[in-house]
Amino acid sequence: MIQNTNELKLNIRESVRSLGTYTLRRREVPIKLNQNESPLELPAALKGEVLRRVEGMAWNRYPDFHPEDVLAALGAQHGLPPEGVLIGNGSNELLQAIFQAIAGPGVRVALPVPTFTLYASMVRANGAAVEEVPLEAATLGYDVAALERIAAQGEAHLLICNPNNPTGAALPASQIEALAQATPRLVIVDEAYVHFASAEVSSEGLLGRCPNVILLRTLSKALGLAGVRFGYAAGHPAIMEEIGKLKLPYNVGHFGLEVVRATLRESSWLAPQVALLKAERGRVEAGLRALGLEVFSGQANFTLVRCRDHVALFEGLLEAGILVRDVSHYPLLARCLRITVGTPAENDAVLAGAARVLGGM
Amino acid sequence: MIQNTNELKLNIRESVRSLGTYTLRRREVPIKLNQNESPLELPAALKGEVLRRVEGMAWNRYPDFHPEDVLAALGAQHGLPPEGVLIGNGSNELLQAIFQAIAGPGVRVALPVPTFTLYASMVRANGAAVEEVPLEAATLGYDVAALERIAAQGEAHLLICNPNNPTGAALPASQIEALAQATPRLVIVDEAYVHFASAEVSSEGLLGRCPNVILLRTLSKALGLAGVRFGYAAGHPAIMEEIGKLKLPYNVGHFGLEVVRATLRESSWLAPQVALLKAERGRVEAGLRALGLEVFSGQANFTLVRCRDHVALFEGLLEAGILVRDVSHYPLLARCLRITVGTPAENDAVLAGAARVLGGM
Repeated sequence: MIQNTNELKLNIRESVRSLGTYTLRRREVPIKLNQNESPLELPAALKGEVLRRVEGMAWNRYPDFHPEDVLAALGAQHGLPPEGVLIGNGSNELLQAIFQAIAGPGVRVALPVPTFTLYASMVRANGAAVEEVPLEAATLGYDVAALERIAAQGEAHLLICNPNNPTGAALPASQIEALAQATPRLVIVDEAYVHFASAEVSSEGLLGRCPNVILLRTLSKALGLAGVRFGYAAGHPAIMEEIGKLKLPYNVGHFGLEVVRATLRESSWLAPQVALLKAERGRVEAGLRALGLEVFSGQANFTLVRCRDHVALFEGLLEAGILVRDVSHYPLLARCLRITVGTPAENDAVLAGAARVLGGM
Repeated sequence: MIQNTNELKLNIRESVRSLGTYTLRRREVPIKLNQNESPLELPAALKGEVLRRVEGMAWNRYPDFHPEDVLAALGAQHGLPPEGVLIGNGSNELLQAIFQAIAGPGVRVALPVPTFTLYASMVRANGAAVEEVPLEAATLGYDVAALERIAAQGEAHLLICNPNNPTGAALPASQIEALAQATPRLVIVDEAYVHFASAEVSSEGLLGRCPNVILLRTLSKALGLAGVRFGYAAGHPAIMEEIGKLKLPYNVGHFGLEVVRATLRESSWLAPQVALLKAERGRVEAGLRALGLEVFSGQANFTLVRCRDHVALFEGLLEAGILVRDVSHYPLLARCLRITVGTPAENDAVLAGAARVLGGM
């Protein structure tokens, strides 16, 4: 019989007990620029159409085991057959399956540093080791020479967040291709933010040529569907078959599938939304630079700034009802804040709030 | 540079490559009795209310990180605080997190045999070993003495599917409690089918007394919401905190959360649906027994039958437009079929179809 909590916790492996918990303190604010969500939504008519279709479905029936139409349409975007695509309840779920599939004694995954913190915790939770590849300290761009060395050694898998969160650093697809050709290991490219990057960044077209590249995409960023939970992984069918063994069946329900179908049927609304947010990113960067902040130009839907006093700027913006992300504890990001690009009015508020704080500093 | 598929596949660990793929051949039939889905749906008014609420939500925003109202309401059902509940995109996702949390060299999980096949593959995929605990061959009931021996040894974790799929075997909660008190290891109880069992089966009330019991529930069976994807795990907050580290954030989207909220607000429709299906289960069992089949009475929403020629019955029912599950390849289940309880009309069709096949055999 269990006597106390310590005895109970011995049932959990030590590597898990020593992990921190991923938490996010919830703050209710009028202007939420802390999670790189799009401030824009799917057109209302398309939302209505999704809901009408979902209403007509049998909620008591499991979703399609292999929704062939969705897999075929997503695969076609990358020159792949349906078997080259795995769909997930968000792309993190697929990353989790990928790491579980490749983990094992001596396996290493090279990650840029700083990057999305969940990567390292997922790699470690699956029993593999993280090899950190620091960004260039001055520009926060990728250290291409270091990546090339790792690829040439052919030992560690590479994960590249392209563009990178939280720095916005990006590599052209030609560089991803060169890395993939230099290594027999996997090159996993998370393109969560790729819609906001210049055209040469997307690795969309190289999957047919590089069997060891796995691409991840999500509906949570440019497509403005973070509340729906949908992502996919695309790659060589032989590798996707193996990773698919670790993906739970029926992981995307009726609602998620209908939302994806809607975006595949009708996507003319996307380009103007992305164009607006890219233009706004430029305006925010220029405005913050004009206020004397160090701005790292990036290719995603956020701006990374270094301040003399990042706490004052964070708190000043919060007083103005604007929540941004304090990333000052990330390696290389001392005194930095990450500010998601919002609507024009939200961005005006950021610039006005920053001017007020910095004028008074 | 990768030369061929074999070289590519070396990136996947051997234990994954050797796993089979969980597949389900899709057959379009009028009467689908192969997945233990409820044949009944949430009332239309409640579906409409969910959709109206979802329409008003911001799809571009991530769902609640900790939906306190949902966690508190589910926890209260088990006498637990919100921290004793983890929600998932189906309960399998939470099982996966549990196995990942406990896996490690030398870790064993004792499973009834036969049971839901995904358990063993998840245990193995997470690097733990499966210890099989065969059901009593004659009755297909649980071998209580064997379970007590394992609990007394205190080495392997126990997973009990209660009632069990695909046999319908069930243990009273008092027996689960005795096992839990005899072992310092975890006792994981999957109650996917518990609504169809007699009242003494549910372990709902013993979580406060047994810190090493983890209960899993789903909306996919009695609640008729398999297409939505929602399940939860309940247990001692100290153990749920550890397992929660391996659960991905934002795994339940806006739609799933609104569906759960609807079932928590209004559940008066559930008891009559369950009563109908339990009565129908009795009618199907009696009817099939009267036809000379060996029927294993179970406490879930399906009937397990042993035939002289299960292939003839399977094919005969399929010709009548009825798809059931051939479980004859499971251990102990030679010549057995599992038939989900459907609507009264569907069950009439099963009985008529079986009479036709067996009359002609």
